[in-house]
Amino acid sequence: MALHENLKSLGAGATAYRYDRPDAGLLESFPSPFAQPDMNPAKAVGTLHIECPEFTCLCPMTGQPDFAKIVIDYQPDRLCVESKSLKLYLGSFRMHGEFHEASVNRICNDLVALLEPVWLTVRGEFTPRGGIPFWPTAEYRR
Amino acid sequence: MALHENLKSLGAGATAYRYDRPDAGLLESFPSPFAQPDMNPAKAVGTLHIECPEFTCLCPMTGQPDFAKIVIDYQPDRLCVESKSLKLYLGSFRMHGEFHEASVNRICNDLVALLEPVWLTVRGEFTPRGGIPFWPTAEYRR
Amino acid sequence: MALHENLKSLGAGATAYRYDRPDAGLLESFPSPFAQPDMNPAKAVGTLHIECPEFTCLCPMTGQPDFAKIVIDYQPDRLCVESKSLKLYLGSFRMHGEFHEASVNRICNDLVALLEPVWLTVRGEFTPRGGIPFWPTAEYRR
Amino acid sequence: MALHENLKSLGAGATAYRYDRPDAGLLESFPSPFAQPDMNPAKAVGTLHIECPEFTCLCPMTGQPDFAKIVIDYQPDRLCVESKSLKLYLGSFRMHGEFHEASVNRICNDLVALLEPVWLTVRGEFTPRGGIPFWPTAEYRR
Amino acid sequence: MALHENLKSLGAGATAYRYDRPDAGLLESFPSPFAQPDMNPAKAVGTLHIECPEFTCLCPMTGQPDFAKIVIDYQPDRLCVESKSLKLYLGSFRMHGEFHEASVNRICNDLVALLEPVWLTVRGEFTPRGGIPFWPTAEYRR
Amino acid sequence: MALHENLKSLGAGATAYRYDRPDAGLLESFPSPFAQPDMNPAKAVGTLHIECPEFTCLCPMTGQPDFAKIVIDYQPDRLCVESKSLKLYLGSFRMHGEFHEASVNRICNDLVALLEPVWLTVRGEFTPRGGIPFWPTAEYRR
Amino acid sequence: MALHENLKSLGAGATAYRYDRPDAGLLESFPSPFAQPDMNPAKAVGTLHIECPEFTCLCPMTGQPDFAKIVIDYQPDRLCVESKSLKLYLGSFRMHGEFHEASVNRICNDLVALLEPVWLTVRGEFTPRGGIPFWPTAEYRR
Amino acid sequence: MALHENLKSLGAGATAYRYDRPDAGLLESFPSPFAQPDMNPAKAVGTLHIECPEFTCLCPMTGQPDFAKIVIDYQPDRLCVESKSLKLYLGSFRMHGEFHEASVNRICNDLVALLEPVWLTVRGEFTPRGGIPFWPTAEYRR
Amino acid sequence: MALHENLKSLGAGATAYRYDRPDAGLLESFPSPFAQPDMNPAKAVGTLHIECPEFTCLCPMTGQPDFAKIVIDYQPDRLCVESKSLKLYLGSFRMHGEFHEASVNRICNDLVALLEPVWLTVRGEFTPRGGIPFWPTAEYRR
Amino acid sequence: MALHENLKSLGAGATAYRYDRPDAGLLESFPSPFAQPDMNPAKAVGTLHIECPEFTCLCPMTGQPDFAKIVIDYQPDRLCVESKSLKLYLGSFRMHGEFHEASVNRICNDLVALLEPVWLTVRGEFTPRGGIPFWPTAEYRR
Ligand SMILES: [Ca+2]
Ligand SMILES: [Ca+2]
Ligand SMILES: [Ca+2]
Ligand SMILES: [Ca+2]
Ligand SMILES: [Ca+2]
Ligand SMILES: [Ca+2]
Ligand SMILES: [Ca+2]
Ligand SMILES: [Ca+2]
Ligand SMILES: [Ca+2]
Ligand SMILES: [Ca+2]
Ligand SMILES: [Ca+2]
Ligand SMILES: [Ca+2]
Ligand SMILES: [Ca+2]
Ligand SMILES: [Ca+2]
Ligand SMILES: [Ca+2]
Ligand SMILES: [Ca+2]
Repeated sequence: MALHENLKSLGAGATAYRYDRPDAGLLESFPSPFAQPDMNPAKAVGTLHIECPEFTCLCPMTGQPDFAKIVIDYQPDRLCVESKSLKLYLGSFRMHGEFHEASVNRICNDLVALLEPVWLTVRGEFTPRGGIPFWPTAEYRR
Repeated sequence: MALHENLKSLGAGATAYRYDRPDAGLLESFPSPFAQPDMNPAKAVGTLHIECPEFTCLCPMTGQPDFAKIVIDYQPDRLCVESKSLKLYLGSFRMHGEFHEASVNRICNDLVALLEPVWLTVRGEFTPRGGIPFWPTAEYRR
Repeated sequence: MALHENLKSLGAGATAYRYDRPDAGLLESFPSPFAQPDMNPAKAVGTLHIECPEFTCLCPMTGQPDFAKIVIDYQPDRLCVESKSLKLYLGSFRMHGEFHEASVNRICNDLVALLEPVWLTVRGEFTPRGGIPFWPTAEYRR
Repeated sequence: MALHENLKSLGAGATAYRYDRPDAGLLESFPSPFAQPDMNPAKAVGTLHIECPEFTCLCPMTGQPDFAKIVIDYQPDRLCVESKSLKLYLGSFRMHGEFHEASVNRICNDLVALLEPVWLTVRGEFTPRGGIPFWPTAEYRR
Repeated sequence: MALHENLKSLGAGATAYRYDRPDAGLLESFPSPFAQPDMNPAKAVGTLHIECPEFTCLCPMTGQPDFAKIVIDYQPDRLCVESKSLKLYLGSFRMHGEFHEASVNRICNDLVALLEPVWLTVRGEFTPRGGIPFWPTAEYRR
Repeated sequence: MALHENLKSLGAGATAYRYDRPDAGLLESFPSPFAQPDMNPAKAVGTLHIECPEFTCLCPMTGQPDFAKIVIDYQPDRLCVESKSLKLYLGSFRMHGEFHEASVNRICNDLVALLEPVWLTVRGEFTPRGGIPFWPTAEYRR
Repeated sequence: MALHENLKSLGAGATAYRYDRPDAGLLESFPSPFAQPDMNPAKAVGTLHIECPEFTCLCPMTGQPDFAKIVIDYQPDRLCVESKSLKLYLGSFRMHGEFHEASVNRICNDLVALLEPVWLTVRGEFTPRGGIPFWPTAEYRR
Repeated sequence: MALHENLKSLGAGATAYRYDRPDAGLLESFPSPFAQPDMNPAKAVGTLHIECPEFTCLCPMTGQPDFAKIVIDYQPDRLCVESKSLKLYLGSFRMHGEFHEASVNRICNDLVALLEPVWLTVRGEFTPRGGIPFWPTAEYRR
Repeated sequence: MALHENLKSLGAGATAYRYDRPDAGLLESFPSPFAQPDMNPAKAVGTLHIECPEFTCLCPMTGQPDFAKIVIDYQPDRLCVESKSLKLYLGSFRMHGEFHEASVNRICNDLVALLEPVWLTVRGEFTPRGGIPFWPTAEYRR
Repeated sequence: MALHENLKSLGAGATAYRYDRPDAGLLESFPSPFAQPDMNPAKAVGTLHIECPEFTCLCPMTGQPDFAKIVIDYQPDRLCVESKSLKLYLGSFRMHGEFHEASVNRICNDLVALLEPVWLTVRGEFTPRGGIPFWPTAEYRR
């Protein structure tokens, strides 16, 4: 599977989880199969829908845990995000304090820098605090 | 978290709840992270979806309690509404008598005055009276 | 609550229900709060979504009972329909024989004549007869 | 189909619906196939579950319409209730004023008198009044 | 109810069901109330949504039964389809062998020929064969 | 409807809502129709299931609003609770501070004192605080 | 797979469907694996839950189609019912006229005669006629 | 049924399943009934919605099984895909290692080559790995 | 509210969250209102149902995050668990490595030691790993 | 985590999946924490609920793929089944031909032999074939 031969996370025996601060360096990409002419003679447009229901971080003012489902949609150009590296990246928010709007904005910007996609959106479906859920969305278009 | 350093409600030890009349002065804002160039180099557009399922006020003609889920969506320009201050603001309708349409209109106008957003909508999903639910929506666009 | 001071149905001690034929004269309106400049300085556009799951009339050919949820959506101009008067109006179909399409058409026309709205739709979600539900919709636009 | 040859309601061309008061005389029965030894050599025990989501009557004090799903379960002895006659019987409550508990009690007693079943229950799942649904159940056992 | 005085199916005492082949001659229409100026002074546009969850036919190659929910949406011009005649028409596919795509295409064409509607769609939600459901849709527009 | 002739709440033109403290004196009862031999010759056992999704009170330590669905089940002996008086009684908790377990215990004890039922249970399905819902239940049996 | 070597229906190239009357002769059985000591040294008790959502027959008085989900549960002794033969057997009711209670009773008795099970139940979840679903159940125990 | 007379898969007694690698040669087509003028005088536009919830392949790097629901939508021009041949084709991925994005891209390209449709989309709803589902979509338009 | 006057967590301005290891010392109790004769003259039996959907810990062998909903049911004797202290206690598993069965067993034992309840159960509804959710339950009875 | 120190599957870098035949030798166990007196001084009874929605095998007569959710419940005595080894064991049915009843019986017997539990049940929720799902259950009790 030549497209993935440089990936480090997937299939590795020992994974070092880092939990202290968001680390965009954990993200990895691979060449999009939609961008390979021999694999896609019909020139079909590819898109990805990704749901991460196990996101957690901390409230920056009270230190209490926050929980969310992070939903990502994008149209790749040359690159796709690798699945296990995305898991590690989202896990790196675990002990980090940040407001909902800032986390969603950060995830969007880190993925745009990695992938240079045609478009990409990130929605954070946070569970309620004080009985009220806040769900920020960040939408990038070239 | 410099963006939030002037907030009074969040994390405060003692909160004084006021229940007698809607008080827009309870609302607080903070600078939108989507509007900070260093935090958002991709210039992603931010939006917010907020659900408040625990809204209650009184019927102005009979005095009986009314219940609703208030749903707010908006695109911030420079400011976002702070979550705990929104809870206090919505709680201030508790002993106030007002028709469904007027409450939804009031919440929309109070948030527009606070945030000067790009657009903002408020929907009130009131529980049925006489077997019939009335759900008003107010839509603001610049 | 000056906007409602002429209403007869709401809060009245004794209500005379009439069940023999649809009576548009039962409908009452009140001034829309969205149309009051002092109440709506942001000029937000107001709309209403109303569900009436307890509608019943008779089949005009067999006399058997028919049941439906009537769903109304509209954008008021100067006037809103009052909730209890709408309940009485819909109740007045109880012993009346009329086909599904005609009832939905009638409710739409009666509300348009009362409210002169910007737009208004009525959908009748009738329960199945012979295993088949028929759901007519009437859409009015100025 | 000899078991049903005396039935009047089913398949009749013209049905006279009566809506003014509950009329147990509308109910009809037919011999239970579970009680015919040639049809049931295994001596299987038969039971029936019946749901009537289109029940409506009036409030005896205010005259306003009430709505319910009536759920009936029973184990027949010699007789089963015929389906169309049950529809006509429940329809006869349409313009009758009666409290929820009394209607459920009446339906239970009328069916027990007709069928002399081994056991029979009637539950009335009434839609809310004042935001509160009341669901009475009557349980008969020999 | 002058609009329906020529109907044969509805309310008739004895109905002759025919099950051997699709028979468009079973379909009947009546004048649309939306097209009567005195009934519709607001000139509301009428549409119909119809679901038929009890459709069954046979596989033309194996003879095994197929099952579907047929969903019909249309905007009538001068005529509406009568509900009981539609039931009889759909029942006439019962012992007929035809592929999914062809049945949906046939129902669409038969209804267009009967009603001359502004637009009309038919969707067949067939239950799975080999673990895979096939749902054809036919869309007619003038 | 002689069973209800002493009721004060139901159908009264003007209702005085009291919101400051739980007031068992607001509760009213009426004779159970299941206990009238002429109405219940089959001696069916009656039970009631009641859901009150619009309950709200205050937290006794922070003053913040709490919300719950109160679910009541009971088997009446001689008396049933009247529906509108139950609504007024539950509304009287609106500005009262009390822990979840104590409110549920109080409602159970007040209803047992009023009705002397065969058995009665009260469950409070409170919405989450700190992401965690607490649902107390009180079960009374003679 | 020696347990199944006498089966005729499964895997056969051409299946002759018969639709005119219920034919218990279509049913086939195979030895229960739970009854083979070498396959079940732990002496686990086996049971089967089977749902047949595509059952249809005719009303014996009007000829109109009836539809049901047939649900079968049983504890085999020496024999299990083969799946394709059960499909053919249930298909043989297609053009047969029979009341709901009688069909359910017949299916139960035919399966008991075939399998001599420890216990077996059949429930028929028929779709509504006249807005009312009737669901008979037959329960056999040795 | 002349349209299907060249089909090999449907109704064949013995089917040879191949599981080792995706084989586009398994796919078969038949002439679209929507493209036959005599069958479609109204010139209705036909579309197909197909769901394949039983798709499974292997991870190319770890060899572990992956599972998905494959959802296909298309507008045929002259040809439709035959249902049993599609099942065999999707089954041929069973022991094949391929990433999610590549499989969806492959299915889309194989169907476009077979059918030359007006448009066609393939979505793969893969079950989560590491708590995160990845759902690629490929969209072809002429 | 004398029953709660010794509580430390609830209403405190600054809460110190500890995340490194499960700390039973964080748990607090208060006297059960069901055990106070003046508050519970009917001697109703009290029980509690508690859901904690935001539980997270680490896998002790791989270090990857695990997520669960913890569900607790118990019948208090003299003491109830205080809600905010329970939140802090469950939060203290955040950076701790422990298998599912051991965590559930630990929570059950810690609560039994604190409350000496009549009975108490803990269920851990963990999200899937490798596509398979494991849900351990611990049941204590005196 | 001394209880797990002999496990081979969990956390291993390279896993060899075997797909040709069910292999009970792949199953591993670890000592139940409920059976360790120091970890469980309250002597709570532990049980496990496990769902495996990604099970697939082949039909032994036609070779077509079968799919199921396997649901396992048990009360461990001294041993629990390790989660990754269970995944590998269930994966080993992938290319094996076996009837539904026999697979469920086999899984139950293999787990009983491994764990010697107090009780254990296995249910196979197979997807429909011919429109009919068959769900066998095997129940072991000491
Ligand atoms: Ca991927
Ligand atoms: Ca909540
Ligand atoms: Ca916020
Ligand atoms: Ca209103
Ligand atoms: Ca129905
Ligand atoms: Ca019947
Ligand atoms: Ca309601
Ligand atoms: Ca019609
Ligand atoms: Ca009552
Ligand atoms: Ca929550
Ligand atoms: Ca079988
Ligand atoms: Ca097809
Ligand atoms: Ca508590
Ligand atoms: Ca999952
Ligand atoms: Ca485990
Ligand atoms: Ca299916």
